[in-house]
Amino acid sequence: MAAMQLLTAGCRKTPKKKKKKKKKPPAVCRSSVSLQLKTICVSMATRRVVQVYLDLLSQPCRAVHILLNCNKIPHTVRTVALRKGENRTPEFTKLNPMNRVPVMEDNGFVLTESDAILKYLAAKYDVPEHWYPRQPEKRARVDEYTAWHHNNTRPHAAKVFILEVLVPAQTGSPVDEGRLIRALSQLDDTLDKLESMFLRRQPFLCGDDITVADLLAVCEVMQPMGGDRDILKERPQLQRWRSRVQSAVSESFDQAHAVLYALRDRRKAKL
Amino acid sequence: MAAMQLLTAGCRKTPKKKKKKKKKPPAVCRSSVSLQLKTICVSMATRRVVQVYLDLLSQPCRAVHILLNCNKIPHTVRTVALRKGENRTPEFTKLNPMNRVPVMEDNGFVLTESDAILKYLAAKYDVPEHWYPRQPEKRARVDEYTAWHHNNTRPHAAKVFILEVLVPAQTGSPVDEGRLIRALSQLDDTLDKLESMFLRRQPFLCGDDITVADLLAVCEVMQPMGGDRDILKERPQLQRWRSRVQSAVSESFDQAHAVLYALRDRRKAKL
Repeated sequence: MAAMQLLTAGCRKTPKKKKKKKKKPPAVCRSSVSLQLKTICVSMATRRVVQVYLDLLSQPCRAVHILLNCNKIPHTVRTVALRKGENRTPEFTKLNPMNRVPVMEDNGFVLTESDAILKYLAAKYDVPEHWYPRQPEKRARVDEYTAWHHNNTRPHAAKVFILEVLVPAQTGSPVDEGRLIRALSQLDDTLDKLESMFLRRQPFLCGDDITVADLLAVCEVMQPMGGDRDILKERPQLQRWRSRVQSAVSESFDQAHAVLYALRDRRKAKL
Repeated sequence: MAAMQLLTAGCRKTPKKKKKKKKKPPAVCRSSVSLQLKTICVSMATRRVVQVYLDLLSQPCRAVHILLNCNKIPHTVRTVALRKGENRTPEFTKLNPMNRVPVMEDNGFVLTESDAILKYLAAKYDVPEHWYPRQPEKRARVDEYTAWHHNNTRPHAAKVFILEVLVPAQTGSPVDEGRLIRALSQLDDTLDKLESMFLRRQPFLCGDDITVADLLAVCEVMQPMGGDRDILKERPQLQRWRSRVQSAVSESFDQAHAVLYALRDRRKAKL
């Protein structure tokens, strides 16, 4: 996994750590650090922090990235570039035989699946309760959305991006317009449900405040933006929701999406 | 929803209730009671119990049914026959605009998605902790499986049943052998992962004891049995796991699967 880019963020500093930082460069910083993401390396020698293996072009990875950053949970990011097949190296396969990102490691405990990682982090790191409420009915609303998400928002927004950006980039062939139209129609149905079911009478998907469900959802609906397509363009209700999410997580939203914006801008520049 | 069959099960009796039962037949028992499912009607006049809307030919519905019965959570079952389109009646659509089962109602709180319902019931009804452990790492293992389940065990076992049983029954056309072979191959891959990832070093999917994850999974791998296909036939490791699940939930396993067994037997009799 030598090619992986290592980043650390949001680490609470102690005097002890500061001292060590001055004496010696961080042992874990093996490769370049992205200034764009405004993250800083600090020494991990004295304590273990959460490690996450992410590709920020992957929607569920961005959701995990946002939760960690906006809650200042001490963590290290190891970038696993899917386009370079870094998820298929023997080292990564050992970590996650499913070869998927995100993966989280917390003091030896390895966990896959963004849904599970977000809920684990919320429980373990004592983030503000609204992220994953403890009250059974409120929690059930989050579990209900996340279960629904896997077969709705997740595949449908992803498919538009795959057809419009990934497949043409990988094969050199033009966009399959017929399949794209069908995918957009399926996505429309999902967006309708997000509006009429989940946001019908409340500002966030699962209630009055932001939860991990909003993170999973917003990162999916942002994905077609990589192909310069804003799928919420004609949906003011969902636009307002996205703005609320963006405000609630402040700069961590754009930090997580920097790679997607860069992709969009590169594609625009080529045209 | 007049056509729905109403069943009640596992209600804890109090002396007060017994008295009322003697005086008056249960107000909620509007239609036939299935003796096969060994359920009994009791009066619901004095208290509200969980109501679940199920079709026991649906895998996630069976998982909910098993959890309720083997933990003796007081509940009422309303059968929503998908084959009769009872999930599309105005009354049911009002309850769940997604037109899906299972749906749970607990004292006015309506919840969809089996994954969320199982976790809510485990939290709210104080079932033995092993069903959905509170310790963060153990709980995360259950959340990890349930997230994975939605795009693996769930669609792949279902597809085999759809191609082999549902489509021929609905269209009268023979089984599409090419599609069935591809579906069986995808399912094989999922079963490999269940063995090598989840059951590698433990008796149940998420640890040493049964959890809601095992219920969701076992109900899926049972589904092709409706077409007389035991997909675990040549998989002793998964067979042992299924037996463990079956033992752990005792008669509630066969109660939930009675409708599937009946379908299999009817199909066999026709051949």
